[in-house]
Amino acid sequence: MLQLDTRNVSKEVIGKTHGLDLPSVFKQYGSHMGQLVSNLWQQKDTPQAWRKWLTLGENETLVQQINAYGERIKGQFEHLVIVGIGGSALGGIAMFEALLPSYWNDRSPAQRHGFPKYYFIDNVDPDKLSALLDVLDLKKTLVNVITKSGTTAETMAGYLWLKQALSEAVGPENVPHHLVFTTDPEKGLLRQIAQEEGIVTFEVPEDVGGRFSVFSAVGLLPARLLGLPIELLLKGIRDISPVLQSTDLTANIAAQGALIQYLMYQQGQHISVFMPYSAKLASTADWYVQLWAESLGKKYNNQHEVIHAGPTPLKAVGVTDQHSQVQLFNEGPIDKIFTFVRLERFHHPLQIPNLYPNLPDLSYLGNQPFEKLMNAECDATRASITQNQRPNVTLSLPELDPIHFAQLLFLLEVQTALMGGLLDLDPFDQPGVELGKKYTYALMGRPGFEHLKAEASGQMQEPAKA
Amino acid sequence: MLQLDTRNVSKEVIGKTHGLDLPSVFKQYGSHMGQLVSNLWQQKDTPQAWRKWLTLGENETLVQQINAYGERIKGQFEHLVIVGIGGSALGGIAMFEALLPSYWNDRSPAQRHGFPKYYFIDNVDPDKLSALLDVLDLKKTLVNVITKSGTTAETMAGYLWLKQALSEAVGPENVPHHLVFTTDPEKGLLRQIAQEEGIVTFEVPEDVGGRFSVFSAVGLLPARLLGLPIELLLKGIRDISPVLQSTDLTANIAAQGALIQYLMYQQGQHISVFMPYSAKLASTADWYVQLWAESLGKKYNNQHEVIHAGPTPLKAVGVTDQHSQVQLFNEGPIDKIFTFVRLERFHHPLQIPNLYPNLPDLSYLGNQPFEKLMNAECDATRASITQNQRPNVTLSLPELDPIHFAQLLFLLEVQTALMGGLLDLDPFDQPGVELGKKYTYALMGRPGFEHLKAEASGQMQEPAKA
Repeated sequence: MLQLDTRNVSKEVIGKTHGLDLPSVFKQYGSHMGQLVSNLWQQKDTPQAWRKWLTLGENETLVQQINAYGERIKGQFEHLVIVGIGGSALGGIAMFEALLPSYWNDRSPAQRHGFPKYYFIDNVDPDKLSALLDVLDLKKTLVNVITKSGTTAETMAGYLWLKQALSEAVGPENVPHHLVFTTDPEKGLLRQIAQEEGIVTFEVPEDVGGRFSVFSAVGLLPARLLGLPIELLLKGIRDISPVLQSTDLTANIAAQGALIQYLMYQQGQHISVFMPYSAKLASTADWYVQLWAESLGKKYNNQHEVIHAGPTPLKAVGVTDQHSQVQLFNEGPIDKIFTFVRLERFHHPLQIPNLYPNLPDLSYLGNQPFEKLMNAECDATRASITQNQRPNVTLSLPELDPIHFAQLLFLLEVQTALMGGLLDLDPFDQPGVELGKKYTYALMGRPGFEHLKAEASGQMQEPAKA
Repeated sequence: MLQLDTRNVSKEVIGKTHGLDLPSVFKQYGSHMGQLVSNLWQQKDTPQAWRKWLTLGENETLVQQINAYGERIKGQFEHLVIVGIGGSALGGIAMFEALLPSYWNDRSPAQRHGFPKYYFIDNVDPDKLSALLDVLDLKKTLVNVITKSGTTAETMAGYLWLKQALSEAVGPENVPHHLVFTTDPEKGLLRQIAQEEGIVTFEVPEDVGGRFSVFSAVGLLPARLLGLPIELLLKGIRDISPVLQSTDLTANIAAQGALIQYLMYQQGQHISVFMPYSAKLASTADWYVQLWAESLGKKYNNQHEVIHAGPTPLKAVGVTDQHSQVQLFNEGPIDKIFTFVRLERFHHPLQIPNLYPNLPDLSYLGNQPFEKLMNAECDATRASITQNQRPNVTLSLPELDPIHFAQLLFLLEVQTALMGGLLDLDPFDQPGVELGKKYTYALMGRPGFEHLKAEASGQMQEPAKA
């Protein structure tokens, strides 16, 4: 099971200025947190409450459907292209980096056990897109298009382009065999196209938002197509759920995490740094950034006053960012709360060889495992951050496997939802992305948005000459 | 040439609360900025001033040496491994993503014109490292080890491990042929090893810090080994240098950028978002994060008061992060200054095909170039951010080629140095990473650091039970 070490936010460790009196805080907020936890889970099946993601661990039928599809197409494709953006991409990117062997696309077919190479299309940069066609064998390519609404401009543009390319490569009649959609169960353009053209589809379930969808078909389908044991992901969620449902604050680490993030935000730690000590969790930090930013960065009215709320999430990766951001973390403004993620053990027992026994500034590394160096750096960075009186917590995973990876993500989802409760805002909407979307539609000439064109180009006169 | 559009920080556009009266600000700070620019460049050759990076564009001899080495080993290696961390890696990672065709390692040898695949080792995670050996053909692998001091623990651990692996694969006598070092011209462990073992070396020049070293051999050597025209990088720097040396604030876009960043920081925009609208500039944002964080995140004494200074840089990538961070950017706290990077043209004229002329919610995209969609999204996001009264500037590049890429990085370096001048701190040191390094040495048993072991493990008792 995961553990949360909260001691480095206590006033005994980091001092009175930024530290908390943890026992008294836990006592003070205990019943409020219990109420928030209970409210969250009670509405897990309520329509329009957007909390259906809490139930994704129980969907055994979906696992069977996906496994059946995976079996059926096994060995037919050498390339898997996933077209999606935001919540339709970030979970998969994080999962495959964490759970597949690194350098997956460089591995031979045998080293991949016959599973395909994979590519995410989560941007519309023509220079990057066009280079993808140089390396795909379209005759052996499966394209998974993921968009709930079927109107996401970026995803649909990517789909149109790839469909055309597939059509030229395999003939129009064979294109449906190379496509699989993940979209709304009933509504939307992609659902309509699938029905008309006979394309296999999986569902983005009702009342599950994009950034909470990784354990639906959005993440599970490509995971299975790459050979990952998706039942273990769901088992991980089920195993940790009782902890996250507990209304006892001393037992619920998601509630503890949310409360600490909240109190730190209130006292000026406006930046929430997420720093895993694992190269394979780098993209999980990107996933966390979306989860935290899009759920909690909100404008709302509080008694005639407009509140602009939301901590800013920040990605860092240990040990790499010790040589990039840690200078700022240690000496800059005390405006950050850190979440370190630490693996109790790594899988490969790689050793640093002792090639220069006569050079003491090098030989001290010799005959020690890389795992020890990795975790010594984690502990050293935590100690230096703490020494500099900056609040930090540490999430420990026994190891990085499907069960504990799923638990990490699910814990962070629950923590984010509870943080929304503490901030008294809706963590499940995203009204602030609508204006930019409408401006894009106006600039691209979508019917019904013509009136916004002037406004959308208002700030874009010729740049002043440099 | 690059252009900087500053209008969206003006009070006429974003309102009086957060906007600047640009003409009056430029007048007020004009002579101070001129002085800072002049101070910076006057000391470019001063020993110990760490400003030698300003002269890297002039090093034609280095270009010849690197080209000669590149010619000599041409065609001998299929894999290039670069071992380095922080400033020894981030510049190269950014450059190759920006300037090589995307999906480089997936391309065939012919598509790579005989140049090798590449891999950066910038972490010590054993699970990722061990997977690298699964995909390397060590007999055809060249390893470029980059560390100025030769004592960077992470880089040297990676070197020891790869050297051992090479030795087993090609025999100890052939190992030197597979190594090339980039290190201090005279001092340090790596220099000593190179001399004893006959390994080709290039120099990290004196008085050039890691995060300012991309246009030294640190970046240029691997760039050349991957086939990039390094003389054009240096030409780009030389071409833009007169602009960046100008003491006239209305002509010097780096000085304008620094001044705007400074004034915004002073008035509470503590987060500096860097958001290129180009998938190929994603890693350039990581490079910027190190440059900005490590140069400006500093603790110093000001009349008996300890100041913790430094804006926090934040990476975002257009269009991808519109579906991740833009909700927070538009509705969250007004604590950010945005730098958008916009390409005036992309290289590939890729079109969105019009496959569904009868579906108006899709067909509006049809027969339009991806370039137009990319830049419409950039303009729409800028317009929505501006509409929400958040200050932002835009750097425009005519296109993403070696010349303009080099200009972008060099401009940001000069801007960072000038920002250090405005904040009245030293942008060229990094004292805040020393404590963590010492704690790591103590935990790994390096001689001379034993006394720190208790302190280094002080915060690491058993985690409280979850």
